[in-house]
Parts: sequence; structure tokens; C-alpha cells
Amino acid sequence: MIELYHCVSARSFRALWMLEELGLPYRLQMLPFPPRALAKHYLALNPLGTVPLLIDGDTRMTESAAICQYLASRDPAQRLDVQPSDAAYGSYLNWLHMSDATLTFPQTLVLRYHFFEPAVRRQPQVAEDYERWFLGRLRALETAAQAMPADQPYLCAGRFTAADVAVGYALMLSDYLGMSSQWGPATQHYWMHLQQRAAFLRSLEAEKQAALDQQIDPIPSPLIRP
Amino acid sequence: MIELYHCVSARSFRALWMLEELGLPYRLQMLPFPPRALAKHYLALNPLGTVPLLIDGDTRMTESAAICQYLASRDPAQRLDVQPSDAAYGSYLNWLHMSDATLTFPQTLVLRYHFFEPAVRRQPQVAEDYERWFLGRLRALETAAQAMPADQPYLCAGRFTAADVAVGYALMLSDYLGMSSQWGPATQHYWMHLQQRAAFLRSLEAEKQAALDQQIDPIPSPLIRP
Repeated sequence: MIELYHCVSARSFRALWMLEELGLPYRLQMLPFPPRALAKHYLALNPLGTVPLLIDGDTRMTESAAICQYLASRDPAQRLDVQPSDAAYGSYLNWLHMSDATLTFPQTLVLRYHFFEPAVRRQPQVAEDYERWFLGRLRALETAAQAMPADQPYLCAGRFTAADVAVGYALMLSDYLGMSSQWGPATQHYWMHLQQRAAFLRSLEAEKQAALDQQIDPIPSPLIRP
Repeated sequence: MIELYHCVSARSFRALWMLEELGLPYRLQMLPFPPRALAKHYLALNPLGTVPLLIDGDTRMTESAAICQYLASRDPAQRLDVQPSDAAYGSYLNWLHMSDATLTFPQTLVLRYHFFEPAVRRQPQVAEDYERWFLGRLRALETAAQAMPADQPYLCAGRFTAADVAVGYALMLSDYLGMSSQWGPATQHYWMHLQQRAAFLRSLEAEKQAALDQQIDPIPSPLIRP
């Protein structure tokens, strides 16, 4: 059975959401945040100390957007992936990579230098630089979202794919960080639509239940203020 | 014909290197660095103002690691990609995503806050934080490189793939930034081996020649010290 190591609301939520979309059986292993400091036993499994860690037989993965693509390809009949023969393949890959490299990393700087660092190491300038940087890059999503049909607001291939899960999580994090009022209206509509998916709601519920069962604080990691 | 917008030694080098590995015809459009400030006409083509921009018919891509995967899949007979049916597929995707999201973004913080920002906005603490962060994550590569056969030192599937191009560029940037003495020995061997590839050397030559022809300064962008 697939095992997923996860912290509440961390990037590993992408993998959880994909598992729920695909209806795959999985075991959800919750970790306190940050695991590097609070779950030292985890370093034996993943020396980087990061989440996610996904274990599927001999496959071990630590990059959340890569996991979205991997899981989608595991069951192509469900059509959450896009095939190389599809004209939308380049767009699909671009959104998958953009979701983390361009739309999530800058937000981790906001988290780190606004909130997580001890007071003397906080860097409000850097947090502001990368909030602005993120919102600048997000304009590419607003342009794409403006072109989406209202009833099928998806990034590529005219249907919901793993790219929507990957980008959706970047919006979820940005929403937690209080930035959503600065998004364009089409981006807001897109995110509102994604949040109504049954699998998204099941993911939130599964994470909450697993946190309670495993005695992990269910507060979303981005909102932990040490 | 494929068009690639590129700055000397920027992330778009990944795409150039892939084009040379595959022997695809392409047109290389050089831009001064940073294009957002120095090539305002480019914003009409790519409103983000970033490189790379790859145009292949109706496909337009801006994420360098995604472009590696896309180009590899365009000609599967050359076996620079890894198929979903291959046991190494998860590893292949993980390295592709890790190359940019985990191994390149932190280096851009070193560049920005050590060198590119005007003196009053430099943040040596942040540059040091992310140099350390990068070197910490790079330990995953050292572990992988230690397990590579000496004559076939590749990341996955027992052969050279797009993942080696994507990760190789992260090492090239780190080398420019003067960090290579802090890498592990297996990582150093891996990078030395990659640099001997004929297609890598052709990419360097193509970029230099295109810069000269198009009157762009051939100094590597990471070394520009404004």
C-alpha cells in the first residue's frame, strides 16, 4: 500500500489530494511541523527531513509536484494526466513545474522570514520582496484563468488534471498567508471552484482525522507561529 | 523551427543543452540579463520577463525543467526520457522537479542578496541561509552519486536522461557561484563527467557564438556584478 508522510497543510497535501482524486488506497503518516526538528526518527526514512515522502513499492519520491504527475500516470484511464501525444502536454508540464518552483518556493520565504525565524533573524524586506515576486508570477495564472470556460475552469487539456492539484495547492498556501485579496478575480473563481471538489474535501477530512488519531496538532502548518 | 529565448548561463541553458543532445534544429534568441529591465520588447512575448521561453508551434513553455521533459518526450527513440512503465519513472520525475524547485531557487537567493541588489538592499544573512539550505539538499545528490557506476554516472534508469541535464545545470550554477569545493566528491565526479559530453560543449559554443552575433555580452549571467 502507498505510504505518504505528511504535515498538516504542507506541500505534501498535493500528494494526499491526488490520492483522493484517484481513489487509491494509502496509509497517511502524519508528522509534527517541522519534522526535521520535531520528528528526528523521520530522518532515518528521509535524510532531507522534508515532506512529502511517498513510498510506493520501490519508488520513493520527495517532490510534491513530481508526485502529482507520477500518481496521475499510474492510472491513465482516470485521465488526470496528459499524454505526450496531446497538444496540451507542454502546457501540462509547464504548470506542474511552475506550481512548485515558481509559485510555492517564494511563499516559503514569506513564511520563514515573517513568522518562523526567531525575532532577531526575521527579514521583513525579504518576505515582502518574495510576496511581491509571487504575486507578479501569479499574473500568468490570472491570464490563463481569464481564458477558462466558467463551468470547466481548468489549466489545460479542457479538463481537471494533476496540474490543477499542483497549482491549487500553491493557491491554498497563499490563501493561508492572507494574500488572496491580492489575486485577480479569475484566480479567485478558479480556486473557489477547486475547493468544491469532493476529493479536495475528503483530503481535508482525512488529514484532520489522521492528525487526531496520531496525536498531531491539526493546525495548518503555515499557520503555526512559533 | 523551435525558438529558444535565452540569457548566457541562465536556467534556459537547460533547454539549449537538451536541444543539442537531441540534435534538433532551433533558433537561439539571446537576451541581455536581466531581460525584464534590459529588453522591454521581450515582455510582449513573455509578460513574466523570465527566461527560458521555448516556442514550438503552438506550445509555449517557460519552466526550464519542464522543457527538458517535454523535449525528451518529443523523440522517445533517443531515450533521454523515461517511460511511465519503467521502474525508474518516479525517480526520473523526482530529479527533474528537484533540479529547479529544490536545487536552483535557493541559489537565486544567493545571487540576488549577495550580488544583484543595490548595496543597501543586500542581505548577507539570507544569502548564507540559502547557500547552506542548498548544500543541505545537495546531500541527496551526493548519496545518489555515490551509488552510480563510475563509467555510467547517471541519476536514473542506468543511462543519461533529461534529469541529468536538469540537475547538471543546478551544479553549473553552483560552480559559478564558487560553491563546488563544498560539494561531496561523488557530486564533483558526476559534474566533471557531465561537462565532457559533446552536446554540453556544443551548447557552450552555440551560446557564445549567438551572443557575439547578436551583440550580447557573453559573460555568464550569474557572474554579472552590477
